[in-house]
Amino acid sequence: MTLQDKMHNYAELIVKFGVNVQKGQDLVVSSSIETAELVREVVKQAYNVGAKHVHVYWNDEETRLIELLNAPEEALQDVQQWIPDSLAKLADEKAAFLFLNSTSPFLYEDVSAERMTLYRQSRAISNQEFQEKYMARQWCIIAAPSPKWAAVVFPDMPVDQAVDKLWERIFYAVRLEQENPVDAWKEHLQTLRDKVEFLNKKHYRRLHYTGPGTDLTVDLPKKHLWASADKVTEEGVYCCVNMPTEEVFTTPSKFGVSGKVRNTKPLNYGGNIIDGFTLTLKEGRIVDYSADQGEELLKGLIDTDEGAHYLGEIALVPHRSPISDLNVLFYNTLFDENASCHIAIGRGLPMCIEGGFDMTPEEMEANEANISMTHVDFMIGSAELSIDGELEDGTLEPLFRNGNWAH
Amino acid sequence: MTLQDKMHNYAELIVKFGVNVQKGQDLVVSSSIETAELVREVVKQAYNVGAKHVHVYWNDEETRLIELLNAPEEALQDVQQWIPDSLAKLADEKAAFLFLNSTSPFLYEDVSAERMTLYRQSRAISNQEFQEKYMARQWCIIAAPSPKWAAVVFPDMPVDQAVDKLWERIFYAVRLEQENPVDAWKEHLQTLRDKVEFLNKKHYRRLHYTGPGTDLTVDLPKKHLWASADKVTEEGVYCCVNMPTEEVFTTPSKFGVSGKVRNTKPLNYGGNIIDGFTLTLKEGRIVDYSADQGEELLKGLIDTDEGAHYLGEIALVPHRSPISDLNVLFYNTLFDENASCHIAIGRGLPMCIEGGFDMTPEEMEANEANISMTHVDFMIGSAELSIDGELEDGTLEPLFRNGNWAH
Repeated sequence: MTLQDKMHNYAELIVKFGVNVQKGQDLVVSSSIETAELVREVVKQAYNVGAKHVHVYWNDEETRLIELLNAPEEALQDVQQWIPDSLAKLADEKAAFLFLNSTSPFLYEDVSAERMTLYRQSRAISNQEFQEKYMARQWCIIAAPSPKWAAVVFPDMPVDQAVDKLWERIFYAVRLEQENPVDAWKEHLQTLRDKVEFLNKKHYRRLHYTGPGTDLTVDLPKKHLWASADKVTEEGVYCCVNMPTEEVFTTPSKFGVSGKVRNTKPLNYGGNIIDGFTLTLKEGRIVDYSADQGEELLKGLIDTDEGAHYLGEIALVPHRSPISDLNVLFYNTLFDENASCHIAIGRGLPMCIEGGFDMTPEEMEANEANISMTHVDFMIGSAELSIDGELEDGTLEPLFRNGNWAH
Repeated sequence: MTLQDKMHNYAELIVKFGVNVQKGQDLVVSSSIETAELVREVVKQAYNVGAKHVHVYWNDEETRLIELLNAPEEALQDVQQWIPDSLAKLADEKAAFLFLNSTSPFLYEDVSAERMTLYRQSRAISNQEFQEKYMARQWCIIAAPSPKWAAVVFPDMPVDQAVDKLWERIFYAVRLEQENPVDAWKEHLQTLRDKVEFLNKKHYRRLHYTGPGTDLTVDLPKKHLWASADKVTEEGVYCCVNMPTEEVFTTPSKFGVSGKVRNTKPLNYGGNIIDGFTLTLKEGRIVDYSADQGEELLKGLIDTDEGAHYLGEIALVPHRSPISDLNVLFYNTLFDENASCHIAIGRGLPMCIEGGFDMTPEEMEANEANISMTHVDFMIGSAELSIDGELEDGTLEPLFRNGNWAH
């Protein structure tokens, strides 16, 4: 099978299973110009299944880098609000959303943390409404290699070969190598749903994390729900919001997180790397932090708003998974977070609070969930991680041992 | 000098001379994703000269082809009006506009004329306000090779070589090979302005065209003005709206065109070729037409609106010019029209009527200029073309002989 054939199959899986485009529905695709080949396949497939209109929003990280390095400060904060507004309007009209991720890990390393933070904060504010809206619809985040990303993952080969190799790894991670990828996905998601059901039944009131550099207790909200990356929209349409996905996740109780937590894989924060960092939390709030790399960017992230001083997600992922079996550090959260337990700084997740989708931000907070403009996952899993679940009556049960499910 | 160096020089010429970006001004760049390398150079240069914010709007012809072939009919007419509206708003805020042209000549040949016409008509309506607004600002159309365009121009070589060769031809046509390109441009535009002055002094009341298949008289409006592609905006900023440019042009009297005219080079109508066509005009109106190739598309063009049945521009270009010396058929109007006398179907030009920029459409019509949503140039020049100018007193003077200026 040629790369072109495989890309065709990938596009088919994305359109029919991941975002699950319906007849007569609009699809919005957001992509780097470097991944146009896959976009074109996706657009073709979407029209094949009866999409009404496919809208493609192109961006170029290299152009953004030039802007970040050279534009006057006021321009970095100058957001063209009509773009997220128009996307939000498409969400109101029940479009589906597909995001192609190909961010190069070190692309923005020459941009000062101050300028990155200015730029990110204005975008976080500008995109807030759109984000809330698309998350209620069908949406899906998938990955496609850019040359610069591939060159970071496979630095020892010519870039063309690195791109091909990264394609192969991505195809493996999204189960395209299996005879019937859709069946494989259904089976896989059933396994994750079994875990979700198990955890919802247990209704742990608290998790205890221990590992090198990590000693953390995380209270769970009274109304917490565990979830996996597949969902059904209010129109009754199934979709899978991340491909690959290996996680089950919930939202922590905003003021109920205490202790220290240390990351285990570098965080590609949209083109900058933050690594070797420890957060200290007290009554949910990050009261101290340090990082070997990207500390200023970490500061910028935490200073996004008051809510970015709290956590919004905890996710359980076995240390052994198809992605971690590849033994590749992807420098890309979509992959690395699905090879590792992770937690997120920022916004709590409405699907993880009973009735959350119908709650105002104030109601979410009243139900222990955090509110923030941002939501950034980082990896804390390793072969040394143990997690205990604490039942309502205080009993402790082993949940993770040596980085994997204890049962 | 490497291709990269030359692209850098091209970007510099475009930013500093063509569109002439001012300190603190926004620049809007519209480009295919295939010409990203040049765009990135342009963005860099624009920030270097002090641009406030450079906005890049990417498009992809291949994706558009998929849409044209596969989207339901209603989607072809479904315009995202917020895009031209937002661009119009940037024009209101005095942004400058740069359009990169790389259209592949035969890209849309498998799309039915009906669907192309549906698509084009809805875009023509949707873009009308934006077009009027950007034309009052600094703007510039330039070219950059796409692989498919290069492959049509140089079909006998591998596509990479064809792209490089087309770059070389473009660099030659925009005078980048000269020691000081800006000085060369200034001298060249002075020559064109001398022609403009000569023609404005003559104030011909009518032109007589004769050539193979062509026998046409064109009345000129009482308030007609000849112009060249450089201009000064109302803020007093100089720019050159086409690079290359070899033409001087004016607007014909809407109801004063009669006879037959035949094209001499294929017209790349935004990704479709129309060729071997003759128009018959009576009192300005196209009353008959035929084409060896693309007759249905020609019909669609003429049926855009009532104004598309009339002419909007006549341009004089010597058959001998740096572009025609290259002896390359570019299949791209920006080049082919600057190697050939041409005329345009559609909208008349405000800069070619005294006080035209301050006129309402009704006032333009009262001053003999045509009104239409469209404006499409096509080539009628050749070594066999002669043009006579008729003075106010009826005297005929030779203006063009054997395709070149008669004096």
